[in-house]
Amino acid sequence: MKFRCLLLTALLIPAFGSASAVADETKAVQGEVRAWREANEQQIVDGFVELLSIPNVASDSANIRRNADYLGGLLESRGFETRLLESAGPPAVYGERMAEGAERTIMIYIHYDGQPANAADWASDPWKPVMRTGMVEDGASAVPIKAPFDPEWRLFGRSSGDDKAPVIALLAALDALAANGHEPKVNLKVFLEGEEEAGSPHLQEVLAANRELLQADLWLFCDGPMHQSRRLQLVYGVRGTTGFDVTVHGPARPLHSGHYGNWAPNPIAELMDLLLSMRAPNGEILVEGYFDEVTPLTESEQYAIESAPSVDELLLDQLGIGAAETDERVEMAIMRPAMNFRGIRSGDVGDDARNAIQVSATASVGLRLVPSQTPAHVRRAINAHIQAKGFTVLDHPPSTEERTRHERIAEVHWSEHGYPAYRASMDLPIAQEIAAILDSVGAEPLIQLPTMGGSLPIYLIAQEIGAPVLILPVANHDNNQHGKDENIRLQNLWDAIEIYAAVITGL
Amino acid sequence: MKFRCLLLTALLIPAFGSASAVADETKAVQGEVRAWREANEQQIVDGFVELLSIPNVASDSANIRRNADYLGGLLESRGFETRLLESAGPPAVYGERMAEGAERTIMIYIHYDGQPANAADWASDPWKPVMRTGMVEDGASAVPIKAPFDPEWRLFGRSSGDDKAPVIALLAALDALAANGHEPKVNLKVFLEGEEEAGSPHLQEVLAANRELLQADLWLFCDGPMHQSRRLQLVYGVRGTTGFDVTVHGPARPLHSGHYGNWAPNPIAELMDLLLSMRAPNGEILVEGYFDEVTPLTESEQYAIESAPSVDELLLDQLGIGAAETDERVEMAIMRPAMNFRGIRSGDVGDDARNAIQVSATASVGLRLVPSQTPAHVRRAINAHIQAKGFTVLDHPPSTEERTRHERIAEVHWSEHGYPAYRASMDLPIAQEIAAILDSVGAEPLIQLPTMGGSLPIYLIAQEIGAPVLILPVANHDNNQHGKDENIRLQNLWDAIEIYAAVITGL
Repeated sequence: MKFRCLLLTALLIPAFGSASAVADETKAVQGEVRAWREANEQQIVDGFVELLSIPNVASDSANIRRNADYLGGLLESRGFETRLLESAGPPAVYGERMAEGAERTIMIYIHYDGQPANAADWASDPWKPVMRTGMVEDGASAVPIKAPFDPEWRLFGRSSGDDKAPVIALLAALDALAANGHEPKVNLKVFLEGEEEAGSPHLQEVLAANRELLQADLWLFCDGPMHQSRRLQLVYGVRGTTGFDVTVHGPARPLHSGHYGNWAPNPIAELMDLLLSMRAPNGEILVEGYFDEVTPLTESEQYAIESAPSVDELLLDQLGIGAAETDERVEMAIMRPAMNFRGIRSGDVGDDARNAIQVSATASVGLRLVPSQTPAHVRRAINAHIQAKGFTVLDHPPSTEERTRHERIAEVHWSEHGYPAYRASMDLPIAQEIAAILDSVGAEPLIQLPTMGGSLPIYLIAQEIGAPVLILPVANHDNNQHGKDENIRLQNLWDAIEIYAAVITGL
Repeated sequence: MKFRCLLLTALLIPAFGSASAVADETKAVQGEVRAWREANEQQIVDGFVELLSIPNVASDSANIRRNADYLGGLLESRGFETRLLESAGPPAVYGERMAEGAERTIMIYIHYDGQPANAADWASDPWKPVMRTGMVEDGASAVPIKAPFDPEWRLFGRSSGDDKAPVIALLAALDALAANGHEPKVNLKVFLEGEEEAGSPHLQEVLAANRELLQADLWLFCDGPMHQSRRLQLVYGVRGTTGFDVTVHGPARPLHSGHYGNWAPNPIAELMDLLLSMRAPNGEILVEGYFDEVTPLTESEQYAIESAPSVDELLLDQLGIGAAETDERVEMAIMRPAMNFRGIRSGDVGDDARNAIQVSATASVGLRLVPSQTPAHVRRAINAHIQAKGFTVLDHPPSTEERTRHERIAEVHWSEHGYPAYRASMDLPIAQEIAAILDSVGAEPLIQLPTMGGSLPIYLIAQEIGAPVLILPVANHDNNQHGKDENIRLQNLWDAIEIYAAVITGL
């Protein structure tokens, strides 16, 4: 056991140079960057407020282009050559700043669009940033946006956490390094996407059209929330996604439950029976062939998960859950393919319930894929499972003739927007290099996770560009991304500046 | 086997007088009544139109009383002494017409209120009767309400089938008998309820307050649709009813299905697991102790069901069903206690579906009880079952403290309006007498069923009055009761006149 742990620890130690030399250099730069930031907080925050004041819903073409132009200007003032990469959607802002003699190129991915926001739900206008002394739900009060700032204060506004904070932190890191006479030893590229929250409908097209331009040794995805423990984490992948709606059809019209109950098929019962035949109470997927393509975790990946601090007890308490669905820790549970029953509808409940056997019952099922599952394969496996359960699978409501010809009918509609998972290898030298840098930036050891729970179409980068991708989240985990009162905790912003400076100078 | 059938047949043969003498007398009266009706169809239908033109939703106090007063007048003009039996609800119209020297009393129960109707759904105003040449859905056209009438024509209006047709048929039968010099040899009482479709909330109170007045040797319930074969049927009972809503609670707020799926409990999955643990795919109820109180069918009852014509194939075709849920014929299936999943709700489906783990999932479950089950017992058994499945049963949404203290939480709300089933014995002499009369009225043998599928609070009559109850439906099975375009097929109305005349003179 001891031997195994030593071996696995060895796998996570950087394979290049001396770990302590990296740490010493990182710490030195970190101190200079921190001093510069402490002297320039007002200026950093003012710039952030200005950026957050430009509404950024992807479908709002005029404003989204204002964001793009504004971001291009910010990059150019830091010496980047920029271009807008056009498609039928919002432009991607591309920038590059080549370093003399640099042998490697790093691409920083950030998205500048945000989720739509219902202003009525927010404590203040989503696009008029407000500083508060803490979380709205804790009754924090608004304060003037004036230094000195308490690091526990939060700046509220759509995209403050997801995903404009990385832009501001990256620019501040570059400014801090320049002020201290540090030049990056790596070519820097940035790719700022303008429709991530809209599902990246044109990302593949833009990547394919700009393959040469977008080449890099690593794409660093700066998106998502940090670990709940507030410790820095590096994530090697994301889950894929697809889903379907299934409608089980019963009688052609609602039937009196007294006259026909126990005889006419009950579509709610049949739907439930079908759904539970696909998923065990602990979440295990029971569909034959479903795991054919699954790549098991490597020992390094398992060890990395086991090394992360456990947040299970914290989550049970915060989320009001008496017991988890599984004995596994949450980080391990999300390594499995997941089937989520996200909605179910038939008839009415409460006072509106009628004593009828319903004509149909519909469920919506979300699927999270792990490497190397493909949407096409899971679709085939699930359709075959439904048929094996005795259902005729249709893609349309049954005709009168189909109703009487088939004993059981399931109408199935698959999501058009499915995509596979992505996971980089922990053995990649550049991954180990980044891990070593990050490990020396934080006060506590770096957390490394093979896959985060959410889904992003990162596979596109591997597919179109061929570069490995790592995900480096910097926003506080409670930034309310996608929801009302989205915010960035100032300490997270300050830390992000040091993180980017360390990566840029450390590579 | 032969012996058993002979024995059972013997049980169904009338135990009094000579069957053929009954038949001869019945046939003679039937001929006179038919001739009178043929000569008076316009007058009968005009009276029906007038009665159907008075709106009759129980909550419409002014109009419901107009119905009661109008009905009282119709009865008085036929020599009945009448009273309105008052409660906080619509009055029941009571009438009695004693026969000189009569030793027995028969009570005719009919309800004069109707289901609410959404006029926009109907082909014509629910309270402005229209004659059509057939069903609306078959494209039948409206015709003037003028004799001569085709017996396949239908009169459309709320309560034309459920349940004003029996009133008109009974009055026409009395008129026809009077015109031919026949006097009933039995005391006639009528009880016209004004809130049956509203759930009879004051029936018990009215029965209890008028016990002596309402005594009879038999209550004949004239309600409900006839057998789908159009053969006359006599029904000995109804199912009881109760129901509940159950909500399984998951996390305190909707969770990202990527970050928490496979770990946070999914309330849709838990609800489905709970529901399917209570009911097998063939409808069998799996709750421990659920059948403790069930009275099994007697051999006569089983034989009666087996003797009825099968409508399974017809129903499969008409209702658009590929296969029934059970191997039993429908008449046998509804003899079992039934659990109907009538509604289920959680999250959204289709385009509105979100990749979230929902906070809760709710199902509404209707229960049909058979003799001698009580709502209190099934409630205890089901609550115990839910607890045995590991749920804490609450009658309120969980508090924060309850959420974390209990592993699984089910919030259960029981219907306040449950009541037990009722079934009269096929061995009762008066039942056998009525059966023999009805058997001789129709062209085909009488169908006898121990229990119909629906529920009525008939147990109240047994409980408060102590009289046996038989149910004698006369409306066509496709009268669209409770729905839009409710109608009575004229041949059913004509037959009903002969049926009532036979019963009144035959007893």
